[in-house]
Amino acid sequence: MINSIPEPAIKRLSALYQLLCRLEVSEVNAISSREIGDRLDISAHTVRKDISYLRESQTSGARYTVLKLKELIARSLNFATSRKACVVGLGKIGTAIINYSRFSSYGFDIVAGFDSNVNIVETLPAETDLFPSYMIPEIVKEREIELAILAVPFEAAQLCVDRLVKGGIKGIVNFSSALLTTDKNIVITDVDVTKELRVLSAMISLGSK
Amino acid sequence: MINSIPEPAIKRLSALYQLLCRLEVSEVNAISSREIGDRLDISAHTVRKDISYLRESQTSGARYTVLKLKELIARSLNFATSRKACVVGLGKIGTAIINYSRFSSYGFDIVAGFDSNVNIVETLPAETDLFPSYMIPEIVKEREIELAILAVPFEAAQLCVDRLVKGGIKGIVNFSSALLTTDKNIVITDVDVTKELRVLSAMISLGSK
Repeated sequence: MINSIPEPAIKRLSALYQLLCRLEVSEVNAISSREIGDRLDISAHTVRKDISYLRESQTSGARYTVLKLKELIARSLNFATSRKACVVGLGKIGTAIINYSRFSSYGFDIVAGFDSNVNIVETLPAETDLFPSYMIPEIVKEREIELAILAVPFEAAQLCVDRLVKGGIKGIVNFSSALLTTDKNIVITDVDVTKELRVLSAMISLGSK
Repeated sequence: MINSIPEPAIKRLSALYQLLCRLEVSEVNAISSREIGDRLDISAHTVRKDISYLRESQTSGARYTVLKLKELIARSLNFATSRKACVVGLGKIGTAIINYSRFSSYGFDIVAGFDSNVNIVETLPAETDLFPSYMIPEIVKEREIELAILAVPFEAAQLCVDRLVKGGIKGIVNFSSALLTTDKNIVITDVDVTKELRVLSAMISLGSK
């Protein structure tokens, strides 16, 4: 049993997992904590510390075997568990996400889409069942949906979150620019292209690379 | 002159800036380093250290004034500088991004879109000039484009990056699942919805919240 990995370490280990998947495709077999740190912009010490949270972790001096470390993270963080997800907001981003077929191969089944515009719900070509937004609490509960991808405009975000919470949602990927608040212990992560552009812009300005 | 802010601090300060923008909309006037840390999943100590890199930073004990801190970050990280950007790959995600009109109000002008499929280039309704992918080096150089949003499939990613680099690109937001490599000092940041879903999934599994 491990349930004591701190949240920042979980985030870094998930980024490391993604890196290892990519290294595997590029046929890289082994990597050092220093090389990992360079790739993820963290110190080699942090890399070793994060890996030490995992069960049966290798000794820290050696290079890590890409495939073994990847499997160890997947097992420790429970990536094999399949989870049901929904998309809220079927504008351009939401539609792109709901029609992205690869999620299921990563263990995420998109089982519902929601939009406040009934015309969109009735006419959008999608392989997923679509519903009007007021049905969020009912459908989330009925289909045991754990994760939501929120792609609605700023103004609509909090109302949608409240409905998701009512249905028993556990985690939200937030594409809206709203600052979401929930009473309960729901995990929220923000995706923001503008923020990414700003980071690059600052790094170019300050010549940090 | 400040050009000595480390890359991880730049990333955290950009996230802080985004948080402050949201707080401003929510009409929150002041915030402590501890509250900031809770929101961004970092320690209050790291928050204070990051802010200390900025010019004329406030003393660390007090609560920060949202508006003042926001302006200080914008000035220190040069967010007022307007930069030209392009979108490479005009599938669903790329099209959603190129038609997102708000970027310009944040200082990013999308001045070109590229796709390897000439049919898409000729028929896609967009207010931005579109070009076939082989023209990337020429157009990037000619229009002095500094940033690229890469939304092509895995297989096409590296070729596009090589063309962007040839044109003199400085930073790339990578939506593809490819592990990008460049010889030169180009800053790259990855956006990956699958990774975000995995982070949430792990946090739910391990009950870290």
